[in-house]
Order: sequence, then structure tokens, then C-alpha cells
Amino acid sequence: MATERLIYLPLGGAGEIGMNCYVYGYGKPGEERLIVVDLGVTFPDMDSTPGVNLIFADVAWLEERRDRIEGIFITHAHEDHVGAVGHLYERLRVPIYCRTFTAIHARRKLEEYGVAENAVEVMQPWPETRTLGPFKVGFVPVSHSVPESSGLVIDTKAGRVIHTGDFKIDYTPGVGEPFDRDLWRSISKDGVKALVCDSTNVFSPHEGRSESSVGPEIRRFVSEQPGMVVATTFASNVARVRSLARAGVEAGRSVCLLGRAMRRMVEASFEAGVLEDFPTTIGPEEAADIPRENLMLIVTGSQGERRAASAQLSRGRYLGLSMKEGDTFLFSSKTIPGNERGVIQIMNALSEQGVDVQDDDNGRYHVSGHANRPDLLTMQDIVDPEIVVPMHGEHRHLREHAKLARAKGRKAVLAPNGTCVDLSGKEPTVVEFVETGRTYLDGTVQIGAMDGVVRDRIRMALNGHCMVSVILDEEDAPLGEPWVDLRGLPTTGQSGDPLTEVIEAELDRAVQRADDKVLGDEKRLDELMRRVARQVAHREIGHKPEVTVVVSRLS
Amino acid sequence: MATERLIYLPLGGAGEIGMNCYVYGYGKPGEERLIVVDLGVTFPDMDSTPGVNLIFADVAWLEERRDRIEGIFITHAHEDHVGAVGHLYERLRVPIYCRTFTAIHARRKLEEYGVAENAVEVMQPWPETRTLGPFKVGFVPVSHSVPESSGLVIDTKAGRVIHTGDFKIDYTPGVGEPFDRDLWRSISKDGVKALVCDSTNVFSPHEGRSESSVGPEIRRFVSEQPGMVVATTFASNVARVRSLARAGVEAGRSVCLLGRAMRRMVEASFEAGVLEDFPTTIGPEEAADIPRENLMLIVTGSQGERRAASAQLSRGRYLGLSMKEGDTFLFSSKTIPGNERGVIQIMNALSEQGVDVQDDDNGRYHVSGHANRPDLLTMQDIVDPEIVVPMHGEHRHLREHAKLARAKGRKAVLAPNGTCVDLSGKEPTVVEFVETGRTYLDGTVQIGAMDGVVRDRIRMALNGHCMVSVILDEEDAPLGEPWVDLRGLPTTGQSGDPLTEVIEAELDRAVQRADDKVLGDEKRLDELMRRVARQVAHREIGHKPEVTVVVSRLS
Repeated sequence: MATERLIYLPLGGAGEIGMNCYVYGYGKPGEERLIVVDLGVTFPDMDSTPGVNLIFADVAWLEERRDRIEGIFITHAHEDHVGAVGHLYERLRVPIYCRTFTAIHARRKLEEYGVAENAVEVMQPWPETRTLGPFKVGFVPVSHSVPESSGLVIDTKAGRVIHTGDFKIDYTPGVGEPFDRDLWRSISKDGVKALVCDSTNVFSPHEGRSESSVGPEIRRFVSEQPGMVVATTFASNVARVRSLARAGVEAGRSVCLLGRAMRRMVEASFEAGVLEDFPTTIGPEEAADIPRENLMLIVTGSQGERRAASAQLSRGRYLGLSMKEGDTFLFSSKTIPGNERGVIQIMNALSEQGVDVQDDDNGRYHVSGHANRPDLLTMQDIVDPEIVVPMHGEHRHLREHAKLARAKGRKAVLAPNGTCVDLSGKEPTVVEFVETGRTYLDGTVQIGAMDGVVRDRIRMALNGHCMVSVILDEEDAPLGEPWVDLRGLPTTGQSGDPLTEVIEAELDRAVQRADDKVLGDEKRLDELMRRVARQVAHREIGHKPEVTVVVSRLS
Repeated sequence: MATERLIYLPLGGAGEIGMNCYVYGYGKPGEERLIVVDLGVTFPDMDSTPGVNLIFADVAWLEERRDRIEGIFITHAHEDHVGAVGHLYERLRVPIYCRTFTAIHARRKLEEYGVAENAVEVMQPWPETRTLGPFKVGFVPVSHSVPESSGLVIDTKAGRVIHTGDFKIDYTPGVGEPFDRDLWRSISKDGVKALVCDSTNVFSPHEGRSESSVGPEIRRFVSEQPGMVVATTFASNVARVRSLARAGVEAGRSVCLLGRAMRRMVEASFEAGVLEDFPTTIGPEEAADIPRENLMLIVTGSQGERRAASAQLSRGRYLGLSMKEGDTFLFSSKTIPGNERGVIQIMNALSEQGVDVQDDDNGRYHVSGHANRPDLLTMQDIVDPEIVVPMHGEHRHLREHAKLARAKGRKAVLAPNGTCVDLSGKEPTVVEFVETGRTYLDGTVQIGAMDGVVRDRIRMALNGHCMVSVILDEEDAPLGEPWVDLRGLPTTGQSGDPLTEVIEAELDRAVQRADDKVLGDEKRLDELMRRVARQVAHREIGHKPEVTVVVSRLS
């Protein structure tokens, strides 16, 4: 009889920043009862996922073991942790546990899929715990950049696991619970098997700064501006949004929140009771009547999102409001790698309007929500775990985090997505590699990353598309010339003649010359047409397009 | 009779970093004789220019005035200054002037188009000048990050213009001429009408550091590594390549240059006589036999380019060489905004191989080639021009640079691409806005940015492509069912049936119901098919594809 074991299996988030999805299991090998921590999304980009709406972890492995899942725990309300609950609920159909503020967001996402709100169970923070099968799980407040972020204490017979979730060590976070060192010490004092820990900022060498260090800088900045001030930050950073709003009010300005996410987050904070003192705000209609030097807008779109308020304001009017010479735009945010182009585009569009743009000035107007390198060591000291398991990071972050732990004499395991680790023994042991992947939400359909749909889109974007129609009569003889339609291709090439006509002429010659074996064989005719079209295009325009051949037979 | 005037007209580079192309004119309005400074390229990206090979300024304005152009001056050998000479020579056909090192590159580019090398005339640096029509032009050495970079002194009856080209103030650049303050003072002492000045680093608040500050840091770093060291930097930064090679040799390592551009640049430097003491290097075959702790590779691809040596090594073997656990990869470079994804991809791929990756560590292993904010002020002090004209920068850089000059009591003019400025009078005056744009090199064809080709590619990438074929007989009656082919679209949607079949069925119903007016009218039938296909797709998969309809009539 095999002994029971405790396993850890990341399906998303360990190999990227985003798309968090971690599995813990306890039981006999292959029969473990399971809990899931976080069901997040990551965002598509034109380079690798054009046209895709959202990306989340492929949960096929979980779906096949649905009857073994006890529950899903969501650590906090960021999209990369809660974003996929609506899209994946039907495939897993297990209870979702989270704290009040997070529950508001999770329920809204489920509602879009018609899932009743009781799918989400609200839990109070530690010392409340929930026993599910072999697990006893509790939410331990941590400081981060969204209210009610929590780490998890996961107890099994194999010992205690602490899953930090995203966190920073902030004793004065403004909104949400301060980091409570005593609490973390007390939950750790009887020994911790494994610390599964956020790796995002492992390359940031200096101790992280408190959210409260930003407020005074913002206040000074806003008070010095002559015209309208527009500030953007992550909507979910309610503490920051409040600091911005307060800075506006203190500078004698009326404050208007723009962007759906911005208003939603503030409302959810009130609803959850984590925010009691937010300045009075006005609506956009009222704002339009206020002298610009008495107005401050707090807007969405700090990452350059094309449809968000920031981008719309940079392009012109938004809800009757617009910026002009003498106004100031403040990015109280950092640009996430990959989003630079969009953000720079906004900065230049604002510059063209004569607007002064202020970035975060190397952290003067923004602090990160993640623990930096020294803070990760602090956390290790507090928890003093047997094993450190780096999570939430690209491969380089996980690797660096493991090195950091080992340099301090701790055991650490590098476990990217799909690596199933047995945490029961004295040493962490990789017991299996599970096939993992990504699922794309494409319109309303979920497709696999490897289905070829996106690959075909990228090919059409890079190569253009040439469509060839050939009609054959009852005797397989061509009826008229082949017809060519082009998309995303130059209209003329080296010869100076229309490219469609040049290709059609060569296709016609090829069809005329083709023997009955070719004309009677779908595949060979398709191949011939494709080859000729690509050759002619290459000669004329220097590259080979994607080709689709439609052969119609009259019969 | 109109008086003569001196005009400045940027066609590229003033509104972006890259794609430099500036025009100066002197003469009666509309009859000015012209010179062109730089003919550079910028690089495409998947977001806005998928499938495009290179981008350069639309030179239609110049082409129409070809008989008025006296010559083209190339300031230095970076692609964003010299990259388009080959592609545009035939359209302009005027002599190209540059210094020896730059000429080697310009000639190679022209050679690819079969243009004889005497199209390029080599000039010696100041005090040599060339008189062309109303212009007298000389090359003044500046320090930058490629050998023989130069500013231009452009004299006309309206006074002296100094066009800095790209530059930094570096008194110990290693390779190439140091910044010669006395020389710059002497050319400025009799009064300078306008300083047309690089704006790239206007947001960098601290004085720039010398190239020579990097060498010792690199040497220390390389000497401390246990395994193979691979370092990447811009191939054109020959001083850096030499520092890297020297660090390798001093650490007892054989040095191998990988990547065509890397070898070319070093060879061109020898040919131009700007490099005399470069360590002996070995080829990749020889390198494969050397113990890894005695080996250093210097490779191309610091910006994450997918086909360059860095990316290839990160994915596995390259020319028989590969990296492994214990090796080190050094980015002696900074990531240009927009290239982050590619660079991070390499870093993670290396991490997966167990390779330690070192970035530039906030400037420890890399310095910029451009003048920072205080250096721009130093340049203004040295030259003491009547007018400052910021060039080479995005709009926000140009604007900030103009503000910086004005804050020091100088006149400045914000002139983005297409802004024709009269520099003759006491105040710079915008006299005209010229329509400018971008030309894409697409395969071997030059297409206009607004031609719609790239727009169609982006649409196919975002929306997928649905092709509909309909055949009508001699009486305009449908022959068989419409046929649907899909590319870049999910195969099934909400109904669970194949998407092609669902669309075909609805198209068939629509065709059967259509009256003769529709069936007889190409445009109306096309519109009907398109509308139905998009509606069905939207219902099934939640988004509307691009649709191409091919109607074939048997007649």
C-alpha cells in the first residue's frame, strides 16, 4: 500500500507572470484529493496571440480529475488570479472560496455566465479555516496592491504549506491590512513544510517601499500643476486611487473617476467595507463645467490599453472631456514589459496636444506591490520553511529565487508549470511532468493554443493571403481561367502588371498543361495551384503568400 | 522678387527615434536648392507592420524635386541613418557623401541594387568641406557609439547651421574620435544660426558616462565567470566589441565573434583604419574544441532579434556551439522600448538551460551613445546658437528638448516630420506643412503605409478570414451550395457543428431566397454573402471574421 503524499503542481504562473493556477494534492499517489489556488488570466498580444481575447491555463488535467477537487481558493482580486473563474467554472464546477472583496469580483465574473452567486463562499481571514477532505485552509492577510490580498495556510498530515499569493511587506499600505509580522511568525512557529512564494520582484535589489511613501509625493506634484491634472494607475490599487483623489481635493480640485474599472473597484471597496473615507467625486458631465485648474481626473489605462480612458483622452475627447496645452498627465504606475509601445504612443499623443507628461520618476509616484529581493529573504526568515518553492514568475525569476534561497542554506525546488513535486519527504522530489498549456478565449469560444487557429492568423499577417478559385466541368476540364483574390498583398510587383493578373495567367497555363491525373485529384491540383501561386508571387513581390485553393467541380 | 531663404524640413526622425531623413534648402521660395541629411530605416513590428521588412521615410517630396537636390550626406553608419540608401538611390539618383567607415556600409547597400561605388564620395573630416550650389558642408567628428560619427557644418548665405547627428559628449570613447570641445568651439565662434540637435536622451537627467567607464566593469565581470561567457551588444559599437574581446583575452579566453554583422563591423573598422588593436579571434569550428571556461563568444542579437546569434543560442545549438549550466550570458546593451518581449524570451530560454543571465545592471555594463539632458545644455553652451531645433526623437522628446532650450532663454522650434521651417529670419518661422509618410519595403516591393496592404493583414490576424465561393449558372441561378473555407478561425462554435457547415447552410438559404436583382448584381450578392457569413460567425463564435466572396458565373 502506497503511503500518502503531499503534491504541488503549478498549471499556470510558474513560467510567466500572470495566469496563476496552482494545484495541491494530498492522498495516495494518483488518488490525491486536490485543491486549486487561483484561476487567473494573462493578456494576449499581437506578436503571439492576435485576435485572442484572454488567455488562461489549460485545465484539462483538472477537468479529468474534477471529482477529486475539493475547492478553488482565490488569493486576491487581480485578473491574473481571479480572471478565469467565469470562463472555467462550468468545466470544473467546484466551490470557490475567497474573502469578501475578492468574492465581489468573482461573483460578477460568474454572473456573466449565469452561475449563481452561492458558487462563491466567502471566508473570513485567519484564524478562520475551512476543512475540505484532507486539507484545512485559511486566508492570512498580506499587503499587496489590491484590498484583502491573502496568503493561504494549507495544512495536511504532511505538514503546513504557506502559499504567499502576491505580496509585499508593507506596514502602512493605506487601504487593506498592513503586513502583520507577528501573525506570520505565529502561524509559522510550529514549523512550516514549504513556503510557496511570489517571485515577481526577485531581481529588484533594494527593500520595497511602502504605499504610504507615494502619497506625499503625489500631493506635492498635484499641488504644483497649473492646469487640469489627469492621473492614471491600476484601478485595483484602491489605496493609490485614494491617494490620488485626496491629493486632488487637497489642491482644491474636484475629482472625477473615469473608466468602468476605476469606478467598480472603488464601489467594491465600499461594499466590502475596506474603504470608508474616499473623497466625494463628480461625474464627467459635471466635470466638463469646472475650470480646468480646479479639476482632476483619475483614469484607467495605465498600460496603454487602446480602449481605456487614458488612450481615448490622448486621442481627443472622452465623455465630453479633453486635454490641452498647460494640462498635466501623471502615470502613477510602471509599464509592464511588453506594454511599452502602447504607453509611449499615449505619451506622444499627449505631447502633440501640448500636455506635460510625468512618468513615475523611478518610483517617486509609484511603488510595486511585490516583495523585492531582501523582502523575500525577510519572508523566509519569518516563516523558516523546510523548503522554498518559488512561484509566480518567469523561468528566470523562479530560478533566481531558488538560487537566493539555496544561498541561504535552504532547500528549494525549481518547478515550472507542469512540474509535479512531492513535498512530503525530507527533500522535494519531482515525481511527474504533467502536460500543460494555454487556452485562448477567442470571441466566445475556448481554443487550444496549439490548435493552429492563431498560427494561421499570424501567417496571414506576415505573408498575406492569396485565394485561388478553379472550376472544373463534369470531365474535369477547367471552365474558364482560375480566379485570384489577394488580401494583404501589394497590387503590383516587378513586372508592373497587376499581381492578380500575373498569377492568374500562370495558373491558367499550369491548369492547361496539367494532365487528367492532376485535374482529377483534389490534393495534387491544390498543390499545383499553391506552388505556382507562391512561385509567381515570389518572383513578383519577393515573398510567398499563404494560399487557399478552392476547386469547384460541376457534377 | 522674393528674397532667398534657408529652410529645414524633416521627412523622418522628427516624430520617432529612427528613420532619419532631414532636408535643408536654400534659395528663393519654391526654388531652393536642397541637400538631404541621412536616409535611414526603422524596423517593423507585429503590432503595426506585420510582414514588412523595413520602413523608411516617404521621399515622394524629394523625388518630385530631384533636379534641385545637390547631394545626400550621411552622418554615420547606423541603420537608422544609412539603412535606406540602397532602397532609395534609384528614386533620387544624387551623389552620397560620407566619411570612410560610413562609406563602406553605404557602398555595400548600394551594391545590392547594382549601384556603382562611385555613387558614394568619401569626405575627410573638418576642415575639409564640399561646396554644392549654395551650400558648403563639412563633417565634424563627434563621439557616438559607432566609429566616425559626425555632425555637419552647413554654411549658406543665411549663416551657419550645425546638425549634430547622433552624438554624446565622450572624451574617451575608445574607438573613434573623442569629443573635441575646442574644435566645436572654434567652428561656433563666429556665430551659429541654428543648432539642429539629437533629442534621444533628453529625459535622462544625469550627465552621460564615457564608453571607457564600461571596460573595467566588463573585465571584472568576465574574469569572475566559471564557465563559457557569451556577451552581446550592438555590432556597430566597435569600441564595446573591442572591450568585450579584450576582457575575454585578459581572462585567458579565446574569443569568437558570432553573427554576420559583428564580423562585418570589425572588418569595416580595420578597412577604414579606425581599429588597429583588436585581439585575435577564432572561428566557431575552432571554438567548439576549446574548454568552455577558456572561451568567450561575442554575439549579435542584443535586441532579441529572432534570427540573430543570441536567440539561436538560447534555443539550442548555433554553428556547433551551445550553452549549458554554469555558463554566463551578458547583455552589454539596453533593450530599446518595444523589444522587451523578444529579449525576455531569450533570457528565459537561457534560464531553462541553466545559464546565468546578466543584464546591463543599470548601466554598469552599458552606456548610451546619446547626449543626456545636461550634455544637451553643454552642447548649447558650446555652440551658442540663435535657434535650437530639436531633431531625432519622438514628439515628446522634441517637445521636451525645445522646452529645455527655452528655459535657458534660447529660441527653439518644435518641428515634427513635415514641418518646413524658415531659419533665415530673427525668429524661426513655420512656412509650410509638407505631407510626409512612411514607405514599407515589403519583400522586394515598396508600398505606401496608407495603401491598405498592412491594414488588411492586421485585420486578418485579428479577425480570421472566411472565404466564400458561389457559382451561378447562365441564368444567374446558384449552382450547388456556396462553399466556405476558413483560416484563423475556430472549427466549431456554440452549436457544436462545424463552423464551415453552419455558415454554408445559412449562405445557401440566403442564396435560395435572393431575388434576381441580387443574384444578377455582383455588389449586392457580395454584400449579402458577407453579411450572412459575419452574422453566423458572430452567433457561433462571438466575433466577425474578414470575408472574401468569390462569385463565379458560367457564361
